[in-house]
Amino acid sequence: MPEHETNLLFCLAYAGPLGQGIANAVGLALAEKHLAARFNKPDSEIVDHYTYCIVGDGCNMEGILTEACSLAGHWGLGKLIVFYDDNHISIDGDTEIAFTEDVSGRFEALGWHTLWVKNGNDGYDEIRKAIQEAKSVTDKPTMIKVTTTIGFGSPNKANSYAVHGAALGTSEVEATRANLGWPYEPFFVPEDVKSHWSRHIPQGAALEADWDAKFAQYEQKYPEDAATLKSIITGELPAGWADALPQYTTESPADATRNLSQQCLNALAKVVPGLIGGSADLASSNMTLLKMFGDFQKDTPEERNVRFGVREHGMGAICNGIALHTPGLIPYCATFFVFTDYMRGAMRISALSEAGVIYVMTHDSIGLGEDGPTHQPIEHLVSFRAMPNMLMFRPADGKETAGAYKLAVLNRKRPSILALSRQKLPHLPGTSIEGVAKGGYTISDNSTDNKPDYIIMSTGSEVEIAVKAAEELTKEGKTVRVVSFVCWELFDEQSDEYKESVLPEAVTARISIEAGSTLGWQKYVGSKGKTIGIDKFGASAPAPKIYKEYGITAENVIAAAKSL
Amino acid sequence: MPEHETNLLFCLAYAGPLGQGIANAVGLALAEKHLAARFNKPDSEIVDHYTYCIVGDGCNMEGILTEACSLAGHWGLGKLIVFYDDNHISIDGDTEIAFTEDVSGRFEALGWHTLWVKNGNDGYDEIRKAIQEAKSVTDKPTMIKVTTTIGFGSPNKANSYAVHGAALGTSEVEATRANLGWPYEPFFVPEDVKSHWSRHIPQGAALEADWDAKFAQYEQKYPEDAATLKSIITGELPAGWADALPQYTTESPADATRNLSQQCLNALAKVVPGLIGGSADLASSNMTLLKMFGDFQKDTPEERNVRFGVREHGMGAICNGIALHTPGLIPYCATFFVFTDYMRGAMRISALSEAGVIYVMTHDSIGLGEDGPTHQPIEHLVSFRAMPNMLMFRPADGKETAGAYKLAVLNRKRPSILALSRQKLPHLPGTSIEGVAKGGYTISDNSTDNKPDYIIMSTGSEVEIAVKAAEELTKEGKTVRVVSFVCWELFDEQSDEYKESVLPEAVTARISIEAGSTLGWQKYVGSKGKTIGIDKFGASAPAPKIYKEYGITAENVIAAAKSL
Repeated sequence: MPEHETNLLFCLAYAGPLGQGIANAVGLALAEKHLAARFNKPDSEIVDHYTYCIVGDGCNMEGILTEACSLAGHWGLGKLIVFYDDNHISIDGDTEIAFTEDVSGRFEALGWHTLWVKNGNDGYDEIRKAIQEAKSVTDKPTMIKVTTTIGFGSPNKANSYAVHGAALGTSEVEATRANLGWPYEPFFVPEDVKSHWSRHIPQGAALEADWDAKFAQYEQKYPEDAATLKSIITGELPAGWADALPQYTTESPADATRNLSQQCLNALAKVVPGLIGGSADLASSNMTLLKMFGDFQKDTPEERNVRFGVREHGMGAICNGIALHTPGLIPYCATFFVFTDYMRGAMRISALSEAGVIYVMTHDSIGLGEDGPTHQPIEHLVSFRAMPNMLMFRPADGKETAGAYKLAVLNRKRPSILALSRQKLPHLPGTSIEGVAKGGYTISDNSTDNKPDYIIMSTGSEVEIAVKAAEELTKEGKTVRVVSFVCWELFDEQSDEYKESVLPEAVTARISIEAGSTLGWQKYVGSKGKTIGIDKFGASAPAPKIYKEYGITAENVIAAAKSL
Repeated sequence: MPEHETNLLFCLAYAGPLGQGIANAVGLALAEKHLAARFNKPDSEIVDHYTYCIVGDGCNMEGILTEACSLAGHWGLGKLIVFYDDNHISIDGDTEIAFTEDVSGRFEALGWHTLWVKNGNDGYDEIRKAIQEAKSVTDKPTMIKVTTTIGFGSPNKANSYAVHGAALGTSEVEATRANLGWPYEPFFVPEDVKSHWSRHIPQGAALEADWDAKFAQYEQKYPEDAATLKSIITGELPAGWADALPQYTTESPADATRNLSQQCLNALAKVVPGLIGGSADLASSNMTLLKMFGDFQKDTPEERNVRFGVREHGMGAICNGIALHTPGLIPYCATFFVFTDYMRGAMRISALSEAGVIYVMTHDSIGLGEDGPTHQPIEHLVSFRAMPNMLMFRPADGKETAGAYKLAVLNRKRPSILALSRQKLPHLPGTSIEGVAKGGYTISDNSTDNKPDYIIMSTGSEVEIAVKAAEELTKEGKTVRVVSFVCWELFDEQSDEYKESVLPEAVTARISIEAGSTLGWQKYVGSKGKTIGIDKFGASAPAPKIYKEYGITAENVIAAAKSL
């Protein structure tokens, strides 16, 4: 980070899932504005860089772009400069067939400063001038529409979709070289080109040395801020940070895990200087406000509560940008769990790009009640358990919620999802922060020699039901183990010995209960076990009623056990 | 449908997943424009209705709205009239905190006609006038910004987020009644109000009778068109339609299922009058163009190839609107399978709303090769297998592709996804259209008495590999059954007897192979079986190389079998 921090740039090309790059760029520019506001001093602009981004016609059609750019305009991210490669061609041909809107007009409506470079093919001075103009407007992001010819220089394929997704081919490469007057062999870089570009090496080194000297001065004058900034730059967490997490016992009052999550977030915000985030217009339902901070806004960018509006996809991708800006920035974002459907594109990129975003997803089952099936996740848990490099947590109570946060903060290369309840849950005996690290662990057991009559496994709000069923079965003289499967991915990474200690091969009488799709549970319950879950859409009713109606009950666990 | 068809309206409120309603409305308006262009005559406007829609601040923040509205502007859907309830309040409070863009300016940039009703609380004449003005502009959709006070009339809660998601409460209801001068008991409708509203009953009946008379005349003058329109209105498919599907044999040339899909689509378009659809700017990769038709565009709305641009989420929700407009309209839409991540919100609504959209999803695995992990689905198959009321097909060859289309067309209350290969696949002995209807079925077996030594199960492009492994094992004297699991949901609906005939309980030596997440396969392979799949992200390489590197090979199936 330090070498990029002074007046340099981040640049994102457009590729892969369209629209992600521009939303990442908004996150990068947000990070710069936030850190600058927190750490710059009248005599030292220690954080100071532009964010440049290139978008194409395709990016401009994607909804995520408008979501992210609406926020960039709202936040007045004046150091964000976006080039729109206006080449009129997408994969299906001329953009006339599907994209005839006024792009600059849209950006202006979003609160952006816009410019137009009419000759983007070789109008270098025009481009330089536009960049200077963009920099002169400091309270708005700038979009520079740069009209270009796709495949510029290719005599037969320029300005056609033939150069969009395919290589030119040998003969057209030859023709293009001839047309552009480029007589060199492939991969040969002439000396004057090389030296022109190489001037950046000493320039960059000088800029870095300047910044280092500036930071040394800063450190002397503002040792406390320098230490905090340094920890954000390196990502090193303060010693003992995890001790700040709230401690819960079985005596703690029953509460929804979304509320316990807010306690964890607020506790962490006191000790983790890079924690920043918010919700997609559900802060008071997701319980994500940091009480000691105000809102990150255009004129208060030093604050840490980010108001994303109802823009889930943009939110996720902006958080990716924040996470990738600086190792110690730990972004979290929130909505109802079912609305991960709106932001999966960004969440998958978190996982693929190793961006340790924390996804705070409340209202995690039919237990949310009256809002009904549009709001009730069913298939979502299994869908994320299958996503590579994503940690899918579903904590059962306060201890597990704190445990999930501990792991989410530690896993900087692996995003985490916390699925949290709307309804109150008791703090259970046997759960623990340490247990969460194992992914699945025994929370109660009255058997000996690793041979219970039954193993009941569950997650989140249904662990309470599993415990009740186990108590009943125990009264009837059975030995029962209850396993909380809070994070499948972490369990799968444990040793075979540990796995055998939790799920002994010899015990085939296994039952799972979870208020979601049963798909996937067969992995743990085995051929002879039973799964209790929901393989249809939910319904609108108070939580206790719908649980009963859908058979997510201790009675059904007991009946399943007896049928084995 | 007929009773709504003449000069009446569709109206959608905003609720649930935000932005879906407006995109549905675009689909409804598209359907009207398309059917009107196909069936209206100079002397008979048999199809003629407006589509009205209400959106809120939240809808306006969602990217899907801009995607759908950009298309509505491009297509010039002049009979689409959208009211924007501009009340400045969303769940987190005043929209000032996250939403300060110029909404009307954005709509104008998208090619819309915009109006502003400044008193939306009781400015009825203003609203009526705006609707008349909207109707006078016939080449552009109209957005009427209607400024309102949320909770209008409530003395203590109006204009605050307190009335957004919660009821007023008894005392505030009382205060509001007093304030508005509404002296009646709850649920009492005064006679003059009732009679004012009830005038719609005879008016509606008269309109319906008019339309019926008009249609009778139309039927006489244009019997052929009337018959086609009738079949679209009722959704009744022409007799023998499925015979139009291409016939493949093991002699047919090896081909990618995406190409075979195009053959099926083109064959169906000749006999299914309501088939209409397209791709999100990947028509030439998804192979979705209907060759006998042109593009549905502003001036050619009678055509059936819809160019959605790179707007996956809008595309899905627009197709929901088309499907729900008229039973016989069968919309299909296409992108790369991995980009279902961008449109899952709409796909889940297809399933929940029983809209029989056909999702043509090509490039369905690492087999797509060089585009790499951003484009390679891993967790997507299992994620849709877990989605209620969604049929997830992954056909292995031409016969199965035709079978999947047959079922997709038949299932008008259940959306379907077809996951299709980029790479060439042989037509296998044993596959069949009829087999697809069973979801999972035996395609080869050299055992007797339902007791093979091994059962190898697979889907799509890996069935070929399963067959090869089975051939090798057979050469070594083993009995082997190969099961194509083309649609899990349909298999799960078969009788226990049928399931036992495919997966006999006594045979536990089972292996699955699929180029995707292994999660879920444990359901069929059982505790003693083995799963071969991919539980990490893909990589960029030519298909054969990456299959080998990731272990999706016949050798690995054979080794797994021998280890059992």
